[in-house]
Amino acid sequence: MTDDRLAALEARLARLEDEQAIFQIVASYGPLVDSGSADEVAAMWTEDGVYDVDEMFMGDQAAIHDMVTGDLHQGLIGNGAAHFLGPAHVTVTGDTARAICHSILLVHHKGKYFPVRAGANLFHLVRTADGWKVHHRTTRALDGRAEARTLLSSGVTGRDLPEGHQ
Amino acid sequence: MTDDRLAALEARLARLEDEQAIFQIVASYGPLVDSGSADEVAAMWTEDGVYDVDEMFMGDQAAIHDMVTGDLHQGLIGNGAAHFLGPAHVTVTGDTARAICHSILLVHHKGKYFPVRAGANLFHLVRTADGWKVHHRTTRALDGRAEARTLLSSGVTGRDLPEGHQ
Amino acid sequence: MTDDRLAALEARLARLEDEQAIFQIVASYGPLVDSGSADEVAAMWTEDGVYDVDEMFMGDQAAIHDMVTGDLHQGLIGNGAAHFLGPAHVTVTGDTARAICHSILLVHHKGKYFPVRAGANLFHLVRTADGWKVHHRTTRALDGRAEARTLLSSGVTGRDLPEGHQ
Repeated sequence: MTDDRLAALEARLARLEDEQAIFQIVASYGPLVDSGSADEVAAMWTEDGVYDVDEMFMGDQAAIHDMVTGDLHQGLIGNGAAHFLGPAHVTVTGDTARAICHSILLVHHKGKYFPVRAGANLFHLVRTADGWKVHHRTTRALDGRAEARTLLSSGVTGRDLPEGHQ
Repeated sequence: MTDDRLAALEARLARLEDEQAIFQIVASYGPLVDSGSADEVAAMWTEDGVYDVDEMFMGDQAAIHDMVTGDLHQGLIGNGAAHFLGPAHVTVTGDTARAICHSILLVHHKGKYFPVRAGANLFHLVRTADGWKVHHRTTRALDGRAEARTLLSSGVTGRDLPEGHQ
Repeated sequence: MTDDRLAALEARLARLEDEQAIFQIVASYGPLVDSGSADEVAAMWTEDGVYDVDEMFMGDQAAIHDMVTGDLHQGLIGNGAAHFLGPAHVTVTGDTARAICHSILLVHHKGKYFPVRAGANLFHLVRTADGWKVHHRTTRALDGRAEARTLLSSGVTGRDLPEGHQ
């Protein structure tokens, strides 16, 4: 009886810890990428992790590291930029999980700020010996394309998940 | 002694689970509404749930469903829109709860994004056999009106709660 | 054996509760400051708490209270403003903690909204008899200055923490 209650508590607590850990991983992306912390950004992903953005496909950790240290991103954060991610909606299923959130990219120019992109961000995460890691992240601009809307709905419901997220 | 410790743990854990569940419900609104998931948006509310926005009063689940499938909202998301809600501050009191957060509505137009509204969002939720549901949501634009400021303060403090939120 | 399991559960649960409490404190700042809730904003800090923003240094609770009731802030919220903070990344270490998040300040003007600032926000919190309190908050604009980027990275990694945050 006591054992059953302990086991139930342990399982419920583990689930909350998983959700919290994943929530925090997503919440760390903006601060890490806007500070140019290339090692830490890359370490959010598994070695073969994918980051698939509209204009850019990064097929492993090294490509993600290169994006952060690259001229385009360094120019952005050198002038001032905020990759502002919203609170993630997280769903854990055993040793995999998904998270979905909006993002806004604000860029600074001569004392003013411009929202140059709003996006849908779907994360597929896996449990590793080193904690939860992103295995696949797909980001699409909310510019009317149906694909971005599908990311948002599938992120919450789990239906019609795109390639790399099953 | 063991039983007391178990009971205390169970109560504390249940409280965290409630807060987490409500946080996630609020976090799901943006992704669901921006993807036009009318059924899922409506199901966030109780059948008699109210969604009271400045320019629009929706008095039950069916009216909320109609808003999502309606021309105005479909036009918004067809062109690209982000109903970006901030992280909710959640307070649970037994079988009811409230949550408060900011929101920004960004709309896409020809490759650019415009923040057309910033709002205060107060949720009154109730525990049902089907999980937590929104019973009343009041949203007001942060355009200087006192009512929006009262939503924000009452959402955190629990004082001066408006009609439908007691 | 049962005692060990109970103790482990209690420790894990306490950590989640701490993280959740701190997350909620950060999430309450925007609603409280945009509603002009000067007492509640000030009470987020310890009596000797510091709020260090680019253009303004507030060296104790009283100075923070004065900021909220002052002409500049009252003008902002009287016209409509959203101090929109992102979801905090929280790290608890015993009786101190840090939290890092982005912020956007949106101001309303004649029916339109303008993002006039994007910032990095680093919180140093301490556990008190009265719950977690902010002991030091540093906010810097993401306008290209290196200092803002250091806040973001140190907030996640704990390295190179600025004065007042050690």
